[in-house]
Parts: sequence; structure tokens; C-alpha cells
Amino acid sequence: MDEIKWDSSGLVPMVLQDEKTRDVLMVAWTNAEALKATIETGLCHFWSRSRQKFWKKGESSGHVQIVKELWFDCDIDTIVAIVEPKGPACHLGYRSCFFRKLEPVSVDGELVAHGEPEFDPKAVYGDKAKD
Amino acid sequence: MDEIKWDSSGLVPMVLQDEKTRDVLMVAWTNAEALKATIETGLCHFWSRSRQKFWKKGESSGHVQIVKELWFDCDIDTIVAIVEPKGPACHLGYRSCFFRKLEPVSVDGELVAHGEPEFDPKAVYGDKAKD
Repeated sequence: MDEIKWDSSGLVPMVLQDEKTRDVLMVAWTNAEALKATIETGLCHFWSRSRQKFWKKGESSGHVQIVKELWFDCDIDTIVAIVEPKGPACHLGYRSCFFRKLEPVSVDGELVAHGEPEFDPKAVYGDKAKD
Repeated sequence: MDEIKWDSSGLVPMVLQDEKTRDVLMVAWTNAEALKATIETGLCHFWSRSRQKFWKKGESSGHVQIVKELWFDCDIDTIVAIVEPKGPACHLGYRSCFFRKLEPVSVDGELVAHGEPEFDPKAVYGDKAKD
């Protein structure tokens, strides 16, 4: 793991991909501490840039993401985690954060939401962090 | 497209996913200019942080990545491009940049390369940019 090329903030992006549907679920940032926690617990942990905080995915919601495989890219500065999601990855309730499609693929295209939220964020998170 | 939340450097990450194999092929950075070129030409363009340069994927190698769909995440600060790859995405010759797997998933695990390069980077790129 010494080979990882962390950026100037000590971070690398991690892409979560559903092992079954093969959908890309989300992209978040990890640092040495969060990656170690991910590996040791088998559950995805991240570093929140907006909250400047170590972050266990699903801490509030219970929607943890179980790590099955970790793949590193040619530059060893990006990670793909193959996961078994225990609930929707998106804090808006969608299974994948990538639910908005550009239609048509044009500079005048619009972002159109596809699918439906599978939970009510207000009911699940309340005043807690939307993680 | 006005909704995109570019970071402080005017960039967002773009994940390329093969429309057929559903493999994640690479992650690179795009800015307003590169995204416009991607949409207008139907071929992936990026911003190279290391070279500080606008970058057409496959310019040297011919391994262009044809855009089929563009998906945006909940925060509108990350993009997934569903692509038809015309040749390997990785500058080391592999179909995907994510060819190194952590085995086992442990802090003592090792990064093990899987698959084989499908071209010889020296023969394809020579002295040109490895794009």
C-alpha cells in the first residue's frame, strides 16, 4: 500500500461499483486512515472534503457498502471498490448517485432524473449527517 | 450544464465505463472546455493536471473513447461516461487502467496485475504524449 500516490491533500478518489448490477454507485475521497478502516472493517470509509471529517459510509443510514475487491489504476492514484451495497448509496435515496442523465448528449441537453428514490432522506437522516 | 459544480480548479472527475463489459476503464479530469469538446465531438476529452493541458483521449494512440451516455451524480460534481472504447484505455496497454487488484484485501495485501497489455506502449506512443 506504500505505492499509493496520494494527492497534495493526502487523498485519492474511490469509485464504488455494485458487484451484481455493475452500476457505478458513487465516487468519494479516501485518505490513508479511511482506506485502512475500509480494509480492516470490510466497509467503505471516506474522507469528507466538505465536512473535513473521517466518514463511515452508512453511519447514520445503515446503508453500508461491503467491500469485495479493491482495484488500483496504472498511476496508483485512483481506486475502484467492488461492493455489495446494503441499501442505496445516494443520500437522496437513489441506489446510485449517478441518476441524472444528460438528454440528449448536447450542450443544450438537460439533466433528467431516472428511477425513484428508495427511501425518504428526511425520515432516514433527520438532523444527522447525510452519509 | 450550468448546474455543474466545478471544483476550485474548474475541474470535475469523469469515470469512463465500458458500455459492453461494464468495466470501469479509467478516471480522468474534465473542465468546461473539455466537456464541451466531449459533447460536441462525441469523443472523450480531458484536462491533464500533470501536463496542464487540454487532452483528446487517443490523440496519439488512436484509442479514442466514443461517448454513448453521460450521467451526473447527486451533487453534480462527478460524471460517469458510458463509452465504446476504440482500443485499450490504459497508456500501459491494458483495456482498463484498473488492472491491479489488492490481494488479499488486507493492509499487508499486494497489488497484483491481472490480464495482459494489448499493445506495446513504446511502439504506439514513441516520444508522443501517452494519451
